Amino acid sequence: MTRDTDGLAAASLDSAEDLEDLALRDDYALNPAFVEMVVDAADQGNAARLRELIAALHPADIADLMGFLSSDYREALIPLIAPEDLADVLAELDGALREEVLELVAPAVLALAIGELESDDAADVVDDLGAGKRGQVLAAMSDADRAGIESSLSYGDETAGRLMQREVFAAPQFWTVGQAIDHIRAAGDEAPELFFDIYVVDPSNKPVGAAPVSLLLRSGREALLSRIMEPVTEIPVDLDQEEVAYIFDKYHLISAPVVDLGGRLVGQITVDDIVHVIQEESAEDMLALAGVSDAGRGATVFGIARSRFWWLLINLATAILASSVIAIFQGSIGKLVALAVLNPIAASMGGNAGTQTLTVAVRALATKELNAANVWPTIWREIAVGVLNGLAFALVMFVVTLLWFHQPMMAMVTAMAMIVSLLAAAIAGILLPLGLDALGFDPAASSVVFLTTVTDCVGFFSFLGLATLILLHK
Amino acid sequence: MTRDTDGLAAASLDSAEDLEDLALRDDYALNPAFVEMVVDAADQGNAARLRELIAALHPADIADLMGFLSSDYREALIPLIAPEDLADVLAELDGALREEVLELVAPAVLALAIGELESDDAADVVDDLGAGKRGQVLAAMSDADRAGIESSLSYGDETAGRLMQREVFAAPQFWTVGQAIDHIRAAGDEAPELFFDIYVVDPSNKPVGAAPVSLLLRSGREALLSRIMEPVTEIPVDLDQEEVAYIFDKYHLISAPVVDLGGRLVGQITVDDIVHVIQEESAEDMLALAGVSDAGRGATVFGIARSRFWWLLINLATAILASSVIAIFQGSIGKLVALAVLNPIAASMGGNAGTQTLTVAVRALATKELNAANVWPTIWREIAVGVLNGLAFALVMFVVTLLWFHQPMMAMVTAMAMIVSLLAAAIAGILLPLGLDALGFDPAASSVVFLTTVTDCVGFFSFLGLATLILLHK
Repeated sequence: MTRDTDGLAAASLDSAEDLEDLALRDDYALNPAFVEMVVDAADQGNAARLRELIAALHPADIADLMGFLSSDYREALIPLIAPEDLADVLAELDGALREEVLELVAPAVLALAIGELESDDAADVVDDLGAGKRGQVLAAMSDADRAGIESSLSYGDETAGRLMQREVFAAPQFWTVGQAIDHIRAAGDEAPELFFDIYVVDPSNKPVGAAPVSLLLRSGREALLSRIMEPVTEIPVDLDQEEVAYIFDKYHLISAPVVDLGGRLVGQITVDDIVHVIQEESAEDMLALAGVSDAGRGATVFGIARSRFWWLLINLATAILASSVIAIFQGSIGKLVALAVLNPIAASMGGNAGTQTLTVAVRALATKELNAANVWPTIWREIAVGVLNGLAFALVMFVVTLLWFHQPMMAMVTAMAMIVSLLAAAIAGILLPLGLDALGFDPAASSVVFLTTVTDCVGFFSFLGLATLILLHK
Repeated sequence: MTRDTDGLAAASLDSAEDLEDLALRDDYALNPAFVEMVVDAADQGNAARLRELIAALHPADIADLMGFLSSDYREALIPLIAPEDLADVLAELDGALREEVLELVAPAVLALAIGELESDDAADVVDDLGAGKRGQVLAAMSDADRAGIESSLSYGDETAGRLMQREVFAAPQFWTVGQAIDHIRAAGDEAPELFFDIYVVDPSNKPVGAAPVSLLLRSGREALLSRIMEPVTEIPVDLDQEEVAYIFDKYHLISAPVVDLGGRLVGQITVDDIVHVIQEESAEDMLALAGVSDAGRGATVFGIARSRFWWLLINLATAILASSVIAIFQGSIGKLVALAVLNPIAASMGGNAGTQTLTVAVRALATKELNAANVWPTIWREIAVGVLNGLAFALVMFVVTLLWFHQPMMAMVTAMAMIVSLLAAAIAGILLPLGLDALGFDPAASSVVFLTTVTDCVGFFSFLGLATLILLHK
């Protein structure tokens, strides 16, 4: 599919196909020019044109479009989304944006749309409804749909139970391939829209194997399921979604049966949901390291500022603590002002080196590449790296200080402070995430503050302390 | 499946099932106790026991085990891996570890193992072979396997061409479901092991639709493929893997046809490969922000230290630059030593606030939630957030300084420096990644150095400059 990125010749774009080509860039991201066309049409109050523009988009792209528009434009657009697309658009939206859009749609319309979704997506959407509206929407749904959603919502947030869809094909071990295929054919609308495995269960409904659909197709109708089935990896219904993603990634799963505490089949998770979880979880780690949460595109300036305020406040406290270390050495700085000039360098290097170690450790913990089996070798390795780079940068700083201040003893002090700082950075960088993880905290969420506290205080103390000892107490 | 985490009662674990239960913890990660059993068996030179232990593991777990062992143990283990598992283990390993393991296996054994893999995995493994051994291995393979691998390797690293497998089912539009199913049945061993879609192609072999396997199962044998097929999203063979992952995530794809420059079907990409790509790409961004690359578990201390050295060296240069800003104000510090104490605070806050903005921007660029359509609102939003938090922390610092130093004018200076620093941090935090992205650089890879250069220099200059102006030149 070749897409016209620059081909925004004029407003005389008539055919639906042209619009589709124009909507997305070569990289399948929304074309900014298309977003502008939507804004223009909305400004002119041209509902027919807007409807035509949205019709050219996949529901995922309509959801994407919402994120690029300001709130007023979203409000204008929502009533124009085709009813059959609305459900999918809702499923694609997230966070503040979805909550806002849900506010704008009537409960009866919502009930109809949500009924179209598979149970996992439906529960996800209902979860974002305000309490009052949720009651109205659920009341307007069929008993079966409502029961399904309520059962989904009874599982904890971010667990396998919430990720799974209840729609699943199961077959007893004694069935043949032909019986399984006939069963699928007969299921009609009750069946999951898309599925990849039939789970083979024992009489107590515990999964004992899986038959991939492609295998069913290739096997003779007379073959017993129990003969052709492959082993399954069961997912406990209360497992955290991050763990579910780990299992899918590790074993390259396409779908997996979810079992209750008694081991009985209650649903399935498919890999397309996992792709989203992986994106989310790694974003969370990355943002947590920077002390920020993704407020999403619907967030207000005030909301964003407030959400970042607390992290900055904690950091201010550590900065003041570090400053109080400098305050101890005011006398030394008064005697030798050059100390104030060189003082930040060792601390800054410690912060950077510590962040390197910390980030690698947080990542390794998330991927389970770091655990009790290799914790000591990893700690020693990081300390060795800290010492090696400490020595290397001690040499560099010795030369730099000598060239800058022409004082060999001062150069000696900066060099020694560098070794101490990088060693402390390595130790803190590896032990902090390990310690937080062992105590059951998220190592990504809070390590950095502790780390910079250590590296700043050690950096300032080692440099100013050594300077006081060596340069001023001679 | 309940797993015995602590049940390492004794070495008298006989049945294979017990070993399997013991190998993994509840979270499906390798059990450290099991790793220790492997190490013990290796220490005793007990090959039979080692073979038994490895036989209890899935190939993905054998690969994982390699990462927890030191090089000597790996060497002892490799010859004991069952030949049918070796291929899968090789496919699971990555980076330095795989290169090391490949060195230890004879070319003929490798050729056999690699022949078992699908074309994408096979090419991936061959790519990690040293030049000399690669020739030997390729020479020992069948012509068809070799041609497939060479064709895969002809595509650029990290492109769709490298990710795709050439094994794919295609059917002409005029076929019926029955014909397609018979074709799949007849394919036998030539078929992809697992597949999710049949691609419907026109006479020039261009994909015009896809029939999910579950749809084939549910449709009557007489139905025309062209009637039941669904639209497909084609992936150009030269597309970057990050873009491929974006498309899979956005449209919840399970598999997609890959097309050459002429739009002809050349292979398919399945979502299980994409899960790995997403893990990799988000890890890359996170590590790049910290200025570190994942050297992998096979890396040496010296190699790791060297790989981190350059980032630290660049950071040293910026730290020295920042120190030279302080040097400008040596006179002021000489007159008022308290300035040296308070000097790092504004710079440190700027660094943290800037990192928050930067990380959110890098993430939004990666997910394409930030582009030309919303770049200006985003810039203004970040600046507004910077001003808001600047004002908030100016107030906090005013109070803190007043309580600490009892000098209202000094408190005024720290407050003003805070506003300037957080504003500069916001501007740099949003403009740097946008600028790097617009110039075609990876915004994750280099923004942080530039950012801290700005925030340190602005922080020091604004605080010391204002102090000199207000406190000392009165």
